Order: sequence, then C-alpha cells, then structure tokens
Amino acid sequence: MNRVLLPFPAQAALANALAERLGARVGRLEWRRFPDGESLIAVDEALQGADVAILASLHHPDEMAMALRFAAATTREFGACSVGLIAPYLAYMRQDKRFHPGEAISATLFARFLEESFDWLVTVDPHLHRNPDLPSLYRIPARRVAAAPAVADWIHGNVPNAVVIGPDSESGQWVSDIAHRAGVPYLVLDKVRRGDRDVEIGTPDMGALGGHTPLIVDDIVSSGRTMIETARHLIALGLPAPVCVAIHAVFAPGAYEQLIAAGAARVVSTDSIGHPSNAISIVPLLGHACADMFGGE
Amino acid sequence: MNRVLLPFPAQAALANALAERLGARVGRLEWRRFPDGESLIAVDEALQGADVAILASLHHPDEMAMALRFAAATTREFGACSVGLIAPYLAYMRQDKRFHPGEAISATLFARFLEESFDWLVTVDPHLHRNPDLPSLYRIPARRVAAAPAVADWIHGNVPNAVVIGPDSESGQWVSDIAHRAGVPYLVLDKVRRGDRDVEIGTPDMGALGGHTPLIVDDIVSSGRTMIETARHLIALGLPAPVCVAIHAVFAPGAYEQLIAAGAARVVSTDSIGHPSNAISIVPLLGHACADMFGGE
Repeated sequence: MNRVLLPFPAQAALANALAERLGARVGRLEWRRFPDGESLIAVDEALQGADVAILASLHHPDEMAMALRFAAATTREFGACSVGLIAPYLAYMRQDKRFHPGEAISATLFARFLEESFDWLVTVDPHLHRNPDLPSLYRIPARRVAAAPAVADWIHGNVPNAVVIGPDSESGQWVSDIAHRAGVPYLVLDKVRRGDRDVEIGTPDMGALGGHTPLIVDDIVSSGRTMIETARHLIALGLPAPVCVAIHAVFAPGAYEQLIAAGAARVVSTDSIGHPSNAISIVPLLGHACADMFGGE
Repeated sequence: MNRVLLPFPAQAALANALAERLGARVGRLEWRRFPDGESLIAVDEALQGADVAILASLHHPDEMAMALRFAAATTREFGACSVGLIAPYLAYMRQDKRFHPGEAISATLFARFLEESFDWLVTVDPHLHRNPDLPSLYRIPARRVAAAPAVADWIHGNVPNAVVIGPDSESGQWVSDIAHRAGVPYLVLDKVRRGDRDVEIGTPDMGALGGHTPLIVDDIVSSGRTMIETARHLIALGLPAPVCVAIHAVFAPGAYEQLIAAGAARVVSTDSIGHPSNAISIVPLLGHACADMFGGE
C-alpha cells in the first residue's frame, strides 16, 4: 500500500488528520501565484507506483481550477497509478440547468473538467438539486459524505433543547436528517430569492418554537444573506438569538461579520473549508469514504 | 459566411474594430461572478452553423480559465461549426520547462487545456523561448501575430531620433525587428533576475546612445521591475528620460504608477490588453491573421 495525500496549502491541517486514518503519507504540493496572476505548482516527485489523492476545498473554484489540473497532470507524470480528488467542498453544483437563455450549465461542464484530471471524487454534502445524486452528474466513481451525523452530535452536545430550522425547502433534506439524528424537532421555512444578495424569509408556526433555542442550518453560507435574514426574522418574532450552523463556511468577504452583527448567538461550521467558525470535524466521516475509494489495498 | 465574434467584456471595443475587418457579427458573451467566486457565462443562442471566435485576452488566466471553457462548450451546444480563440495576450508561456524539481510545466499543460475547447488560436507576440514557435507547443492551428510593424510605425511617427533598448537577451528577437522596421539603432542589455520582483540591469555602451532618445521595449510588463530598473539605470547614466513601450500591458497593481514615478517620459502599449497606456493598435495586424484562420469562406 503506497498512499500519498497531496494537500493544497489551505488543507494542510485536514490532510494530517486524514492521513493518519488512511495510512497515507502527506506529500508536498506547493502553489505560488506570480504577479501576473499565473500559478506555479510543484508536487512531490516520489510518486512512482503510488495511489495519490489531491486534497482541495473548491470554494474559489475559478482561481484553483488551473492549479488543480496542473497538480493532477504533474502527479501522473511522476508515475502515480491513480489520482483521486478529495474536495470537502465541491463547487459549481448550483447551475444545474439553464435558468435563462444562453447560460452555460456549469454543474455539468465543471464535472467534465474534473473528470479529465481525476479517477475518483469524494466530497461532503454537495448541493444536489436537480441531479439526484453525484453519479447522475459525475462519470467517475464519486462518493458523497453526509455531515449530518457530525452536526447532530455537535447539536446534541452543545445546544440543549434545540429546534433545527431550515431556511428554505431545498434545506429540507439535510435539516430533517440532522434533527432526527439529534433527536430534536425541526421546521423548514420558505424563502423567496430576489437576487444574489436579496432574499425574503417566510413566517414560521410560532407554536412549534416555544421554549426552544432556534438553530439554523444551511449547507452553503456564501453571501450569508439567507442565514442573516433568517436570523433577523426569528429575532424580530421574539425568539432567542439563534445558533447558526454552516456545513460549508464559504463566507464571501464581510459575510461572517454581518451574520454575527445580525444577532446570531453563535456561528459554527464544519472544517470542510478552513474558517474561524470551524467547530465540527468531518475528518472521521471523510476518512471512511476515502478509505473505500483510495487505491492501494 | 456566418462569422460570429464573441468577446469577453474587457474586449468589447477590440471586437467591434475587428468584426468590421472580418465581416463578422459581434454576439453576446456575458460573464458574471457570484459572491462565492463561481462564474456564470451566457452566450448568444443564434449560433447554428456559425463559425465562432471567442475573443479574450488572458492576462488573468486562472480567473478566466473556467469561464473560457464554459463559453466554448456552450457555443458548441448552440450549434457552432467551429470555435476559435483570439487571445491578443496568451498566458502561461514562461514556465516552458521544469526549473526546479516537482514543478508543473504549465506552458504545455495550459496548451493542452485550451486545445480541448478551441479549434484554432491566434495571438500577438507570445513569449516564446524554449519552444521555438507556437506549433511546437500547440497541436491546433496556431498563428502568432508580430506587433513589430505597428510598434515601428508608432516610433517612426512619435519618437524622433530613438534608440530602441531591449532590457535583456530574450528581448533581442523583437527589439531588433522593431528597430530595423523603424530605421533606428538598437541595443540589448543584460539582465540578472533574482526573484519575481528583483532584477538588475547591465550597463550599456554609452557611445551608441549619445544624442538619442532611449525607448525601452519589452513584450510583457507585469510587475514592471525589469522596465523600472532599466529606466532608472538609463536616467542614472545621464540619459534623457526614456519612452517605455509594452507590447502587453499586463501591469500588476501599482506597476504602472511605479514606472511613471521611476521617470519614464511616456509609457505606451498596444491594445492587446485594455489599459490607459494603450496607444498602438494591433487590430489591423490581428485582422489579417484571423481572416486566414476563421472558417466560413
């Protein structure tokens, strides 16, 4: 067994934790950017016969795409038998149809792009909507890890008497799973999206919320508008300050600060993307899924 | 003949000028970025049977790579017969070998990436070094346009008594061509590069410079260090303030201002990349090359 994990710089800590569970060596992957915006990638040269996984969270997918491709290609040049991608956060899952004339369906096109470089893919809670599961989108072996057990454990240990709140119907799938696992009630609100940063939240049935601590869960918190409006809305209805849980802490500049300012009692996230709010580790769950996909057994 | 030019937003003006020469229609290509850093591309839908060229200067190649790929793929979905790339500035030409262990040879890998999306390529003065010409790097028909005739014309009309100065041996190829065409003398200096932003310039033979206006030409001005040091060096030797000509005005943030502050009499560039210093149009030269490559005749 010759397993090598090549982490992008932002995933170094995750790689060390994961390598132990996988019996893998952590190899070198350096990424430098020149003043003209080009990337220089350098990887471990001792990869002859190795089964390699590149570890990269794709929350800045455009900036990373070339670096990712260069890393995978160079890894193969150095003799790797297989090259997988562990992307705790997977990008380009939302544009899964042509919403307006002329639009590129980037979910599909990004899948084709990654397939050219990688033999397999493991990710955490991808934003699946019109594609029911990863294999309907990706043509390489692709495994999704649900963060629900880790989030439910955290709720159980940290938020007594929680009610899990999903800000919109799309969140229903993971909110119900998390609530059932944590043994607490849940509620899914309605959301009207008017633009990238403009959303309106429906009014919940107050009877179901009495005496509970509201805990809002969303899969991707990017501009933060959905979570901010939901938090404000609940506070305006006289509920206690909500705990906010993001599966993926994408957080566009300023979004995290605005969410705190909106009155969240606490903002936590999984470590799928490194962020000061990380409090829930997905390493154990990710380790199981990667062990199944990784070659070299 | 059904030629359509799809310009990236930054190349809209260039597209209009070029379309006239090519008998092409300028179609719609929109590029929007979401707060999470993903791109949304939308293109003209009326492309059935069209020969299409996408027009994009690649001075932010990583940020543009996915957008470029999505645009090309969607253009084909809408029935284009052929899709070429007009990239007045072509990226990733410098890393044409492995300078240190483990490095990705991005010049080759970027070529493979573009070939998957495009049927042909036209560019202006690519930074060729170890690859003697574009066909030794690109496996699709690829044409390079030399900006030298346009630069020579500009020198002839604007800088009486110029001496063309190349800051390093790599610049020798275009500096001699430009000087011959402009009918003026030239001189190529030595350069020692110590880092991305740290260079030292050799001392020229002063006798050859007496009574002339120094005119420094470089193909890519990015951090601007080479041109800034060359300008300072010539001024320190007692020469008149130099005119600085960039073929490609890449200009990292602050670089243009630093070059002005270093004492350049004037900074001009071709319009291969839109920039306030643009003074030399490559449209006529680009038009000829594109007409040869474009389908639909």
